[in-house]
Formats: sequence, structure tokens, C-alpha cells
Amino acid sequence: MSHSNLDLVNQCDGFPYPESNTERYLASITTYYQLRVSGHDYALGYMLPSVAEVFRGIPNWELNDDERTLTLTGGKNAEERSKAVETTLLAMKETGHFKVLSKWRGELYAVYGKGKELLFNVERSASPLLGVVTYGVHLTAYTNKDGQLKIWTPRRARTKQTYGGLLDNAVAGGIASGESPLESLVRECGEEASLPEELVRSKAVACGTLSYWYIRDERAGGETNLMQPECQYIYDLELPEGTTPKPGDDEVEEFYLWSVEEVQEAMKNGEFKPNCALVVLDFLVRHGILTSENETDYIEIVSRLHRRLEFPTL
Amino acid sequence: MSHSNLDLVNQCDGFPYPESNTERYLASITTYYQLRVSGHDYALGYMLPSVAEVFRGIPNWELNDDERTLTLTGGKNAEERSKAVETTLLAMKETGHFKVLSKWRGELYAVYGKGKELLFNVERSASPLLGVVTYGVHLTAYTNKDGQLKIWTPRRARTKQTYGGLLDNAVAGGIASGESPLESLVRECGEEASLPEELVRSKAVACGTLSYWYIRDERAGGETNLMQPECQYIYDLELPEGTTPKPGDDEVEEFYLWSVEEVQEAMKNGEFKPNCALVVLDFLVRHGILTSENETDYIEIVSRLHRRLEFPTL
Repeated sequence: MSHSNLDLVNQCDGFPYPESNTERYLASITTYYQLRVSGHDYALGYMLPSVAEVFRGIPNWELNDDERTLTLTGGKNAEERSKAVETTLLAMKETGHFKVLSKWRGELYAVYGKGKELLFNVERSASPLLGVVTYGVHLTAYTNKDGQLKIWTPRRARTKQTYGGLLDNAVAGGIASGESPLESLVRECGEEASLPEELVRSKAVACGTLSYWYIRDERAGGETNLMQPECQYIYDLELPEGTTPKPGDDEVEEFYLWSVEEVQEAMKNGEFKPNCALVVLDFLVRHGILTSENETDYIEIVSRLHRRLEFPTL
Repeated sequence: MSHSNLDLVNQCDGFPYPESNTERYLASITTYYQLRVSGHDYALGYMLPSVAEVFRGIPNWELNDDERTLTLTGGKNAEERSKAVETTLLAMKETGHFKVLSKWRGELYAVYGKGKELLFNVERSASPLLGVVTYGVHLTAYTNKDGQLKIWTPRRARTKQTYGGLLDNAVAGGIASGESPLESLVRECGEEASLPEELVRSKAVACGTLSYWYIRDERAGGETNLMQPECQYIYDLELPEGTTPKPGDDEVEEFYLWSVEEVQEAMKNGEFKPNCALVVLDFLVRHGILTSENETDYIEIVSRLHRRLEFPTL
């Protein structure tokens, strides 16, 4: 099956837009429960009713079926709230109720309020249950010899539980609570591509953020239809001659140095991990390769890569 | 008064977002009339009630107060519709009813349908009366000597009727109906900055689009509160040493070659034409100058620069 670039965007940014499809949008959001924190009267994420139901009657949580809200009532500050969330999730992990919790990572993601303040931390594998915004870094490593642009493209280990064998960006990872995007990038560049810290700090260029509202499917593992609004900090790194990314752990099978045409062919064939395809699209747009001359859906694609999420973000 | 970068975005992207402020959004859109074309059951723009009222009883137009729509009923194809629109607008120009029509440009802007087909052309000065999406090109010309980035920044002639004396992007202009973004860019680069065609064609890099929903104020001239959703095709051009932009017409007073700090200071002081400030912000984001480390509202700014408009776009 051949994927257009807009198909690739639709795969990642699947939640309807209120202004162009108000009925479908309202039908969607009234299906879900809003996640809230006591004293903060706004949605931090949307949860499947079947997920919210499991929180009924549990200490520190209040489920309101009329308003369709699940409110974290326990804890007066970020530390106490994080503890309350952890206690609940550890208990749920024990009962084995949620498949996603069987992939417990022991990493904390941050959830922010409208004032950009930390409201609480949540175990990474549990974040799609709550439907909260998660943050990551993605780096495109490329070479530009004699005007011939080539993109370093790793293939994920086929043994990886999520998106095994698919193509990825040179470096990509989640931002742990308390970590800055740049520190996260430096760490991941070492772990995933063996790129030296000095090189990353001096040559990686921040190029904006991508944001989209992903609805998880089978390939993500665990329960499907969970909401995963995401924000990715994007970096470009032109590698000097002689510098080659190398797998630093067992998550990457191999790095290819591919021409733009080879990358675009693989995109068309659906060989990329969905959100990594978006990072490639943004790279091609910013470097004048994907243009209004060769892409019919140019305007739609560029705006969809930068969705304004309706939840507070950092 | 000091303007934050988010203030600058808010100036241009003033229409409320449905998902984060549903009440204000609905209050806003129900205030306006939707512009439609017969057989195309969707909004092409929003019009002030006081503007829509003037179309009541005019041949080729149907005003529906219950549905709050103004429908262009005349014409079976783009050519016939364009003629019907022109006839109406010329008559309105004659009566002097609308101030914006006194700046009649004799340039046609295109209005597209959901299939990206041309629905009709409209005189440029009339487009904000109809509230339709308009398209432009903006180019940032810069130098990068020894890692010192400088931006060519023109000051608009103080005699210019709109935004006189404010700072601009090196080249900026509206895209006429039938003209491609690149052809429009080449033309404007010659007219406004005396940049040679070969240089522009070989060195200007397309870098995406900016889109926002502007509500016109006094500085735009003519009626206020008219809707002007816009989409700008963005280009970067690194000028080779010795090449200097020069005013090619009387629209520009002078070109400055400014450091990033000088440009940012002028932005803070509100010295830029509002939409040109957005182009600078996008440039600073893409070049790693404005980052999550130095801009609190980074995520919000990046997504707001790429608003998904609820009207069909090209």
C-alpha cells in the first residue's frame, strides 16, 4: 500500500479537529473522560471510559459520571500527587488489569498545569492510560556533500516490542521529568547513536517542535484507542565527514546513509515508525525539498505537523 | 510598551481557538456570517454582519439570516462567479460604502474550494470584506559571516498607507490568482529588493508556511474587525558577500543589516509590521536562536505560527 505524505500525518494526528468537524469532535470528546487535578478546572488528558472506570472508588481519585471527569484529589503539591498516582498505578500493575503497565519502565514523565507548573509525575508506560501530553526529542543526522543531502536512517531492532523492524530518526527518546530537551538529546545521542557530547552540544541545531494527537493502535502495544498527545523537540545535526552514528545499545539494528529519494520511497512504503515519518517530513519542508511545487497537501501538512494541543504544555 | 514573543503572535493570530475556549469561539463565529458558494456547503470565510447586510437583495447573492450565511449564487464556474463578484464589488466601490474598497488594487486573489479548485477570484482590497484566506510570500535575506548571523531588515516608507514606517521582511507580497509561490517570490524580489532572478531561483530555500487568523485593526486601514485568515509561504535566502538588497520601488525607505539582538530589540519595541514579526520568529526558531531554553512560550509559539485554518486552502 502506498502512503501519501498526508496519510502519514493522518496516522499520527488522528484526533478530529473541532473547527472542521465539530460533530465528530464533540462525539469523540464526550466519549472520553477528562483527567483533572483538584483545584485545576481543566482537562490534562482524555481517558477511555473503560480505563476511567477502573479508578472508581479508589482513594485519591474521584470519578464523576455526569461531568465525565476523573479528578486526582489526593496530594496538595507535585510530590504528594506523584506519590498518590504511583501508589494507584503500582496496585493496578499488580492486578495485571492494564496491558500497557506490563511494560513498566521505571521512568517518570511530567504533567504540567496551565501555569507551566509541574502538577505530578507519572510512570512512562501509564501516560497513555491518562491521555496526558508526553514530550520527546528527535534528531535528524545528515550529510551534505557537494549539495547531495543524505539522511542517516536507523532500523529499529526487530526484537523491539514496539514498532520492531521499522525505520526511525537517528536519535529519538522521551524526556524524563526534570530533564531539559537539550540534556535529554545529549543523553540519547550517546546511548542510541554513540555521538560525542561535544559534537552534539556545539553542532545540533534546535529547529522547533512538532505536535500531534496520536490515537494508539496495535503497533504501539497494549490497549488500543488510548490517547497520546505528543510534543517533540526537533534538532538537526549535520555530521562532519568521518563521523558515523553507531548503535550504542541493542535498540538499533543498523544505520543506513540514504539519499532523500531512498528515504521518501521508504516513507511511501510505510516503513517508518509513524511519528518518525513526521520528523522526516518536517526536515524535508525546512530544507526546501518538500515544497508547494511537489506536494499538493503542503499547507495542510505543515500546519498539521504543529497542532496546537488543547491541554497545557510546558 | 514591551512585547513578548507570544504578544506578537497574539496580535496576528487573534481569533479564538475552539478547543481551548469553546464559548468564546462559538460566540465569535455566531456573530459573523459565513461566506459560501452555491453547491459548496461550507464556509469560505467569515463576514461582519454589517458587511453581509450590504449584500442583501443584490443579484447573484443570497443572505440567509437564520443560517447566518451569505451565498454567492451567481455563476456556474470560476469565470462566471468571478465576474459576478467583480460586478458587485465595483458597484459597492462606486457608492463609497466600504473604506477598504477605496484602496482598489486591480489585483485578483484566488478563493479555493475543498477540492483545491478555484471557486472565484476577488479584488485584493475586497478580500477582508469576504473574510477569505489570502496567500503571500515572505523572504528573509540574511548573511552568516564567521558564524555571525545578520538579518536584512527594511523599513517601510513612512508615506505607505498601511503600516507606514514599520519594519518588514526583506521581501513580502501577496500571491496573485494563477501565480505560483515561487513565481510570486521571484517577481517581488526584483520589485522590492532588486535581487537578481538567477540568485533567487538558485539560492532561495522554501521553508514551509505560516498561517494565522488575523483580525484587522486600525493600522491595516479601512474597516476594523474584518477577518483576514492568511497563509504565507516562507523562504530563506543567504546572500553571498557583496550582494545587497536595494529598494526597487518607493515602498521601502532603507535596508538595515542587523544582528539578531538588534532585530529582537525592535520586535520587543513593536517596530515590526505584525505578520512580519511572525516570519522573524519562525526564522529564529528554525535557526536554533529562539529555543526552549530562552523562550518560555516556545511550544505555544511554534504551534500558533502554523494554525490550521478551518477554511479550504490551496
